[in-house]
Amino acid sequence: MGTKKEEGSMSRLLVRNFSVSLDGYAAGPLQDLDHPLGIGGMQLHEWIFATRSGRQMIGEEGGSEGLDDDFFSERASGVGATIMGRNMFGPIRGPWGESDWTGWWGEEPPFHHPVFVLTHEPRAPIEMLGGTTFYFVNGGTEAALSAAFEAAGDRDVLVGGGAATIKQYLRASLIDEMHMAIVPVLLGSGERLFDDLGPSTGSYRCVEHVCSLDLIHVRIARAGRGVDGGLQG
Amino acid sequence: MGTKKEEGSMSRLLVRNFSVSLDGYAAGPLQDLDHPLGIGGMQLHEWIFATRSGRQMIGEEGGSEGLDDDFFSERASGVGATIMGRNMFGPIRGPWGESDWTGWWGEEPPFHHPVFVLTHEPRAPIEMLGGTTFYFVNGGTEAALSAAFEAAGDRDVLVGGGAATIKQYLRASLIDEMHMAIVPVLLGSGERLFDDLGPSTGSYRCVEHVCSLDLIHVRIARAGRGVDGGLQG
Repeated sequence: MGTKKEEGSMSRLLVRNFSVSLDGYAAGPLQDLDHPLGIGGMQLHEWIFATRSGRQMIGEEGGSEGLDDDFFSERASGVGATIMGRNMFGPIRGPWGESDWTGWWGEEPPFHHPVFVLTHEPRAPIEMLGGTTFYFVNGGTEAALSAAFEAAGDRDVLVGGGAATIKQYLRASLIDEMHMAIVPVLLGSGERLFDDLGPSTGSYRCVEHVCSLDLIHVRIARAGRGVDGGLQG
Repeated sequence: MGTKKEEGSMSRLLVRNFSVSLDGYAAGPLQDLDHPLGIGGMQLHEWIFATRSGRQMIGEEGGSEGLDDDFFSERASGVGATIMGRNMFGPIRGPWGESDWTGWWGEEPPFHHPVFVLTHEPRAPIEMLGGTTFYFVNGGTEAALSAAFEAAGDRDVLVGGGAATIKQYLRASLIDEMHMAIVPVLLGSGERLFDDLGPSTGSYRCVEHVCSLDLIHVRIARAGRGVDGGLQG
């Protein structure tokens, strides 16, 4: 399992600002190159670009303050590394070959720390502007966890997504705390977050639920962990 | 289809106070005689008995006021009939035989109006104390809808549950408005509310989301219907 316990670190494995629909989908149906989030899936992320911190992230001014912005602006606070699934990194399947794909985020991705991409296919690290380096881990979720905690030092590690990756860590009860933004729309079908989690859901309890005008924010935490008070604490 | 459109009635088909878990389950796993709501499913309904109106319903004093009570106390407002699935009425399967089962609710059920129970097995109506009569409809969901609207007159019809029954009416886009109480617990598995609904979910939009201390209240309404303001309107 992950190295953090063995090393006695207080670093946590976190999910933040993970958007799901009211009917529980993290992406809409029919995901493909033109619809990486599936049909209707972009609706789940519009709230980010309505906030001040979301607009800042893409170099725009304005945007809302308040609860949604409070959550999103804290996305990288105390975080030293991110883990993501290959589908979140890009649409390419199979061997990387001569691909020059460096993610969806342009030359200066908004992570500013090491990012560990789960893949079955080896690839050399890619150093981007602004402190983000993409490392490609083909040893599975536990190898990625170990590498990310080592890179993060005393800081926390974020699981960025997508749903399939988060589910793997939830199923193993390795995520310490997860914040979800429930967007009040119905997608009808697609990729669920809470599905096939087995007994691991018994490890978690809801520690916060709070509504903004546009969203329902929910935090769940692993039982037995120290829980910080959160924004509403 | 239902008779209401043909008759020009303004009666609506409603769902109120339908409890689901944070992970989308309306009942826990392993439903049986001893656990009619499945393992952990009772947690979904505890909020009702914490409210003043919920306690009144069972002849108890005290209980909370506020948002949860506001919703629950309005459960029968303007309602002239209820439809429910057979599993909500009782645990008996197959022919009724000599059964003297008259529901979970004792001699004076809390409906006080005609209740139409979906069943494949014919049975004579049962008149209870307090104005509730159980009618057993073996002609399917549309026959129950017609009978309930006829009985309700100008008033609305409630679909009481369970999830399977609500899903049938949602799938046909026949429900005009549905209020859910999302309870911030994880059940892990069980019977989902939003599942296999197909394109009908496109007929609905979320018109309200509001948090109380214990719950998240959400209302969805069929697009194109006049929407009342609700408690937060």
